[in-house]
Amino acid sequence: MRKYNFFAGPSTLPVEVLEELKENMVDYKGMGMSLIETSHRSKEYDEVHNDAVGLVKELLGLPDNYKVIFLGGGATLQFTMVPSNLMIGSRTADYTLTGSWAKKAYDDAAKLGNAVVAYDGKENKYTELPSNVSLSEDSSYLHITSNETIGGLQWKNFPDTGDVPLVADMSSDILSRPLPVEKFGMIYAGAQKNLGPAGATLAIIRDDLLERSSDDLTAYLNYSIHADKNSLYNTPPVFSIYAVMLVLKRLKALGGLDVVEKMNREKADLIYNVIDSSKGFYKCPVQRENRSLMNIVFTMENEDFEKDFVSKASAIGMVGLKGHRSVGGCRASVYNSMPIEGAKALADFMKDFAAGK
Amino acid sequence: MRKYNFFAGPSTLPVEVLEELKENMVDYKGMGMSLIETSHRSKEYDEVHNDAVGLVKELLGLPDNYKVIFLGGGATLQFTMVPSNLMIGSRTADYTLTGSWAKKAYDDAAKLGNAVVAYDGKENKYTELPSNVSLSEDSSYLHITSNETIGGLQWKNFPDTGDVPLVADMSSDILSRPLPVEKFGMIYAGAQKNLGPAGATLAIIRDDLLERSSDDLTAYLNYSIHADKNSLYNTPPVFSIYAVMLVLKRLKALGGLDVVEKMNREKADLIYNVIDSSKGFYKCPVQRENRSLMNIVFTMENEDFEKDFVSKASAIGMVGLKGHRSVGGCRASVYNSMPIEGAKALADFMKDFAAGK
Repeated sequence: MRKYNFFAGPSTLPVEVLEELKENMVDYKGMGMSLIETSHRSKEYDEVHNDAVGLVKELLGLPDNYKVIFLGGGATLQFTMVPSNLMIGSRTADYTLTGSWAKKAYDDAAKLGNAVVAYDGKENKYTELPSNVSLSEDSSYLHITSNETIGGLQWKNFPDTGDVPLVADMSSDILSRPLPVEKFGMIYAGAQKNLGPAGATLAIIRDDLLERSSDDLTAYLNYSIHADKNSLYNTPPVFSIYAVMLVLKRLKALGGLDVVEKMNREKADLIYNVIDSSKGFYKCPVQRENRSLMNIVFTMENEDFEKDFVSKASAIGMVGLKGHRSVGGCRASVYNSMPIEGAKALADFMKDFAAGK
Repeated sequence: MRKYNFFAGPSTLPVEVLEELKENMVDYKGMGMSLIETSHRSKEYDEVHNDAVGLVKELLGLPDNYKVIFLGGGATLQFTMVPSNLMIGSRTADYTLTGSWAKKAYDDAAKLGNAVVAYDGKENKYTELPSNVSLSEDSSYLHITSNETIGGLQWKNFPDTGDVPLVADMSSDILSRPLPVEKFGMIYAGAQKNLGPAGATLAIIRDDLLERSSDDLTAYLNYSIHADKNSLYNTPPVFSIYAVMLVLKRLKALGGLDVVEKMNREKADLIYNVIDSSKGFYKCPVQRENRSLMNIVFTMENEDFEKDFVSKASAIGMVGLKGHRSVGGCRASVYNSMPIEGAKALADFMKDFAAGK
């Protein structure tokens, strides 16, 4: 029986995509070999690669002055590459500290330039997001983490930054909703939550920011090289990009990001509604306006209840509900590829579990 | 019909490995989901990950003071990471220029410190390798490229470097032969030639060199962080590491690297013998002692012959025989996973083709 997989990443994939990967694993569309064996410069891979790039552009409605590239190393490598490429002049950049991932991005930036804390959610224990952010004079960019996987909070409106480019780590909510893309100078995301399997990282960069990449940068770290070579400067993570392409094709077939957002809201509402009507049995620490539609975190009155919950859920086929080891509690990750039936099953189980205590 | 795939990378994989990947793509060993959907901290992935690490150690007979890590970004990212981590003191390091890949490694190092050209094969058009190399005073390491995929030449004996660590890019011949591992301070390799599909990079580093990683390095670029966290500091390229593990298991089952080398020699000999007995119809530009067992390059008297050769071979199911676009000619890549039948089929075709001209 297929399980409902609430892992925060790597995370559930559409079963149709897995079936198609399986179908083509040994012999890709009758070419007599697997796609993962063919040259990354073959016409078969070229088509997959360009389809993946094209679907990102189409789904997000990207204007022509944005480039789409695929890299390796996860979002973590982007914590290095963003400041390495985009810090200019006094090398000052603003960072919002909204949780664990934002902090990691900031820590790396602080090693490469003058990273300024534009907002720190420490006082509210990272359960709120600011309504706006004031920027440093001479700021090269403002960095935000659009969704915090561990804390379960998500930006709903993005800060106005005027001429200062807005850069967002969207690893855990990319393509989960329509975006005002023109507000962003750069968006990046590890694939393994909403896009596909681990191994590929998506980066979307506005042309004027590509001009910031200095010739002093080594090759792999230079965005402008990857953009010029259509992400084929070196061998890309072929399998992951292929799987991402299949996931994106499905999002398009579903009707695009408006439909996807509606589905995500419906799934998240099912679970938040149980939390909110549980008379305090379940508690979500995140301020209501900033609750994530992707990662729903909740606690119970004691750890034994939480352990029991995770274990009983797992026994009936719902896995990955343990909160991140750094914060404890429970967490249900309901990314794009989680079917509504999974969210319903979890909501029902949560009601039953609370009633039985 | 399954083709014989002579691509230089990504390259052919054992069909048994592809079958196993297929078998487990939707439901990994009955766990109710794919391995690529599960958390990288799950017990199922943990086993795969540690098996991959353990098999590298076992196959190479690594002493305990070497760490095995898996990264993303390909060998190209290592061109940045090697000097970033290993250059110390005056930041001087020696590089041997033996072809296109070595040159790329050098170019990046020259941006990060004092990279010294310890050998340049330019005069012999990169068709020979030096018997020994003299090192700079205060050298942090000597870098070599153990096999040049494009030029088709391979180090057979490795230079003596005394106390200076020897660092090798073995992307195109890793695990193709037994190695005197104690001679090396570090070995790295992109997966997509001898190890598995693109997306993972293997790095093997001696403990004392891990101590060189400065705290000033950003997280992803720091070898010591990856080694401390057993390559789980961030989400690793799960699918590629899984496939690498399956390839390594097969190498072990074949009998280990002595057997693998014997098979590789047999395959390469079949093809070199046709070249050498063709009375000049086929020419291999590489000095005999340094001919690669992995990438066999050859030319014919004119380009039309070469085009005809590649096209006729392709028509009967042998693909990927075109030389790299930067050098032209033909190239047969016969990595570990190329079956002997493929090398035989190619050798026979080469004889027929020459006879028909």
